[in-house]
Amino acid sequence: MKALYVDGQLSLRDVPDPKPGPGEALIRVRLAGICGTDRQILKGYSGFHGIPGHEFVGEVVECDEKRWTGRRVVGEINVTCGRCDRCRRGLGRHCASRTVMGIVGRPGAFAEFVTLPVANLHEVPVEVPDEEAVFVEPLAAAAEILEQMPLAHGTRIAVLGAGRLGLLVAQVLRHAGADVTLIGRSEWKLKLARSWGLNTVRVDVNADAAQWAPRTFAVVVEATSSPQGLEEALRLVEPRGTVVMKSTFHQLAHFDTARLVVDEITLLGSRCGRFDVALDLIRRDRLRLDEFVSRTFALEEGLAAFEYLDSTPCLKVLLRPQP
Amino acid sequence: MKALYVDGQLSLRDVPDPKPGPGEALIRVRLAGICGTDRQILKGYSGFHGIPGHEFVGEVVECDEKRWTGRRVVGEINVTCGRCDRCRRGLGRHCASRTVMGIVGRPGAFAEFVTLPVANLHEVPVEVPDEEAVFVEPLAAAAEILEQMPLAHGTRIAVLGAGRLGLLVAQVLRHAGADVTLIGRSEWKLKLARSWGLNTVRVDVNADAAQWAPRTFAVVVEATSSPQGLEEALRLVEPRGTVVMKSTFHQLAHFDTARLVVDEITLLGSRCGRFDVALDLIRRDRLRLDEFVSRTFALEEGLAAFEYLDSTPCLKVLLRPQP
Repeated sequence: MKALYVDGQLSLRDVPDPKPGPGEALIRVRLAGICGTDRQILKGYSGFHGIPGHEFVGEVVECDEKRWTGRRVVGEINVTCGRCDRCRRGLGRHCASRTVMGIVGRPGAFAEFVTLPVANLHEVPVEVPDEEAVFVEPLAAAAEILEQMPLAHGTRIAVLGAGRLGLLVAQVLRHAGADVTLIGRSEWKLKLARSWGLNTVRVDVNADAAQWAPRTFAVVVEATSSPQGLEEALRLVEPRGTVVMKSTFHQLAHFDTARLVVDEITLLGSRCGRFDVALDLIRRDRLRLDEFVSRTFALEEGLAAFEYLDSTPCLKVLLRPQP
Repeated sequence: MKALYVDGQLSLRDVPDPKPGPGEALIRVRLAGICGTDRQILKGYSGFHGIPGHEFVGEVVECDEKRWTGRRVVGEINVTCGRCDRCRRGLGRHCASRTVMGIVGRPGAFAEFVTLPVANLHEVPVEVPDEEAVFVEPLAAAAEILEQMPLAHGTRIAVLGAGRLGLLVAQVLRHAGADVTLIGRSEWKLKLARSWGLNTVRVDVNADAAQWAPRTFAVVVEATSSPQGLEEALRLVEPRGTVVMKSTFHQLAHFDTARLVVDEITLLGSRCGRFDVALDLIRRDRLRLDEFVSRTFALEEGLAAFEYLDSTPCLKVLLRPQP
């Protein structure tokens, strides 16, 4: 099959079709999304070599459990042992011996086919098109914040960074009843957010958002994908407030911990979330995903898709293997 | 009166006696404690110029509210406006216009006399000697952790750093029912901790405690007063665990935020706590404070006291103004 492959650099390769193991399904990828983490992986994040890609919707073509065959599915990306203490506590996403599709020790979805345990699959309801289902993984990551912290109605939240993740997080938190302000540098993305009813603030490329509103927000979500974002978030959050860290990047961040201690700020790391919650958000059709897709490339044009992401102001870029 | 004074360097000075304002008490200092923050202030932390010192026990000698005169007291160090939103929510310790005795905009207790609003005072019960009452402020800071996070009985906690703060925090958390391991580099301090019934682990000066037990603890309290402590704490904490930051220092810390995000760790800044809780802990006599005092200097020997702290393996050093 055709697949994108990363080993220091990205290439298109012909690789053997994957074989599903016991309890696994072979899935034909219908559509896959390129995420910021994929671009970090190209820079060396997680040390991954292999087929990247962890946002996808596909169709089961082979499976021991026959009832799954032919179903349209999305799949949880953490493949867990199911037996350790963390798995038993429902924290499989933190299983120490997990693999993570396209990120740690397991081939990803930028390919014609991918395998996953049946336990990881969620059927996509018929009313949800591929172009929305492919957002389940990043939406679940956005909704994870709600699972980690209680959120009173009207809580004043700043989302820092108006990229793909920031726009999704802002929508999810607003849907949950928060008073959300999206802070970004790109006017056309903020305009899109305003058309969805979000409050926005534009900060100059060289300016610090906190100059505008220091120590103002009960919660600040750091979604800039930049090591500088954390310091800016710490300046925006009010004493006893919470900074949610969403970005993963390959560099170290540095910050003034005295500010964290003196103002008793909580810094909350937040990663993958539950797919059922995200599917439910999409099914109830409360989110704006239709304007999120900037362009869809054929899988064979994958390298061009990554170049497009690097060179063009855009939001989500999708890959579609040829049927 | 005699007082220690910091303005780039520390000196002993003759300064005018302070005058209590409306609602304030004039307090004769009976005993004061030198804290790690005082030593950071000498290095430039908080930019404070004036009389340092925020751990004390004293006696009210002048006050509009006559019932306070002659009482032995300890005093909350944050002097707040009492009117802002944070004050009204009971978060006066985070009042934006607060002064902090001996740290921000208000003279401290390394002097013969100090003033504080009556609202900040707590009477010391007759059964609590000065040598224990002087620990109320750092004990309140240690107990603040319990106010910020729920702590199930038997929670596995590492306290990183066996200095004054670490030893107090370890005692308070153990008293609250946690399974506490104190991690330090100084054998004699760990031996003292063991004599109080605490579990201890000694790590070599050049070693990383996490090599011994990576990702093992539900909670790690960072009390090393070193920018490196945070990284070590992040290696010791288990996924979805909490790192409590207690140290304040004048440098920036740097760390791998991807670890925080991927393992969904909570980093919790923790500072001052409630004095009533700390007084109650002392009164019920469950803590070992008697072996905590390494040496008591006269206030006039204050410079020697700071030199002693820098040059001698010791725990708490106290200052006693001449009566």
